[in-house]
Formats: sequence, structure tokens, C-alpha cells
Amino acid sequence: MKKTKDKINCSLVQTIEAIGDRWSLLILREAFFGVKRFDIFQSNLGIATNILSERLKKLVKDDILQRTKDPEDARRFIYKYTEKGLDLYSIVLAMINWGDRWTTGEKGPPLFLHHKTCGHRLDAMMCCSHCGKQVHAREVHYEKNPNTL
Amino acid sequence: MKKTKDKINCSLVQTIEAIGDRWSLLILREAFFGVKRFDIFQSNLGIATNILSERLKKLVKDDILQRTKDPEDARRFIYKYTEKGLDLYSIVLAMINWGDRWTTGEKGPPLFLHHKTCGHRLDAMMCCSHCGKQVHAREVHYEKNPNTL
Repeated sequence: MKKTKDKINCSLVQTIEAIGDRWSLLILREAFFGVKRFDIFQSNLGIATNILSERLKKLVKDDILQRTKDPEDARRFIYKYTEKGLDLYSIVLAMINWGDRWTTGEKGPPLFLHHKTCGHRLDAMMCCSHCGKQVHAREVHYEKNPNTL
Repeated sequence: MKKTKDKINCSLVQTIEAIGDRWSLLILREAFFGVKRFDIFQSNLGIATNILSERLKKLVKDDILQRTKDPEDARRFIYKYTEKGLDLYSIVLAMINWGDRWTTGEKGPPLFLHHKTCGHRLDAMMCCSHCGKQVHAREVHYEKNPNTL
């Protein structure tokens, strides 16, 4: 098999660059739980302030979070998802669901997720946006984009 | 807000422990593309053999890949997904899709994904396995599991 540089440069790598370190993912998780303020990120995660500050800066630079003045206190800033950042939820949710299925013991996962829309416990799955069916690894075909060769 | 240790210990952390480094994710991607042999992982990724060897060992230890004799050459080994490993596809697919949507330029993504089941270009989304609707971040409620407090 020849070197498949096109595969190496696939979009997965770009995503890893954007969110692929442990602290960034945990910051994003907290933001999905509703956290917006620096001190709350810091206290929930027990993260060093310089690391938190650096990761937040990168997430803002990458247009995943936006930093704006806190409407409740103009001396403070809050961090909120951009549209691009909000779209990361599928990844975070897929990671939580996998951990729930494969790494929790008899007591179950630390958090239960509920889908407010239908009221049921949430176990999400990746579905094809065209046919709506669940997508399994063996049902996907990969084709090189000739424009990027 | 008090420290939310239950959130910190959520399943996301377990998943990051299992797959959260760049090389492990790229190895998993190659395995989803059908790669099974050490030398092919090595040549496709340009990864140092000691790093590849160490990452494969961890993936086998974590029951994500299984190492078996190559039926075509008994002197060699091949690496194949376990059921637990195969279930990581949602995460890898979500990451590829996000990268495709937000990080590719005018030329489009390096790879087009097709859903063999319906024959259409694949843009996957996370759906609730109960109601089938797409799941958005703001529609999920988190509840502590009393058994794990």
C-alpha cells in the first residue's frame, strides 16, 4: 500500500489540532454544562490559571469560544460558544456516551443524560443526515477529493 | 458554584484516557480505513516504530484493538478492532465531519465520505436513539447518578 498522505491530512487532524488536548476538551465540556466565567472554569476543573488562560486564548483564537463583557459585571469577561464551537457538541457527546458504555462499573456513569426534546435517557448515535439510519464503520466508503490531490 | 467533582470524573475523562492522544487517534483512523498490519500503520503515518509499538500495546491492553496471527503469514501479527474499539467510530466520524465543515478551504475536504447504505455523501449527526431526532447541546439535561456520589 502506498503512502496515503491525503488520509494523513484528513479533517481528523485539523480537529485534533483544535481540541485534541485534555484540558481543552474539559473546558469545552464545562462550557456545554453552562459555565461561562474564568473563575468557575478554574474552580470546577482545578486547573492552573496560566494553563486555563492559555487554553481559553487558543479556543478564542480558533473561533470556538468568544470572549465578551459579562452583562452582569462589566469588569469581568465571559466565554460563550460560537456556532463553530457549538458544533463540537457531537464529538463531546460521542465521547461521553462511549465512556458511559465501556468504562463505567456496576454503579453506572457519574451523570445521566436526558434528551429534553423527548424526555428519555439519552444514548445518542451517529446517523446519516440523508437517510436517517445509524452509521456503522463498515458502511462508509472513502473517496479522495480530486481537488485536493 | 461548588466544585463538581462528579462532572470532572465524567465519562469524557475515561474516553480521553483511552484515545486522547494524537497518535492513538490517527492509528484508530487508519484501522477504520482498513489497515491491520504494523508496517502499513508505520508507513501511512510516518510514525516512529517505538511510538507505534507503544501505542498499539496500549490500545490492545485497553481492549480497543486485538492482536492476532496474520492468517496470510503466520510470522506476522495483525490488529483488528474489538467491539469496544469499533464503537469508537462515532467519535472519529464526528471529528472528521467537524473538520470537514469548519477547517477545509474552497477545495473541500481531502476525503469524501459516502454512506454505502443509502449511497449519498455522508454528513453524519448525533441522534437520540429513542426519538431519532438530532441532538443539540441545549436540549440535554445532566443529572447526577446518586449511586456514584
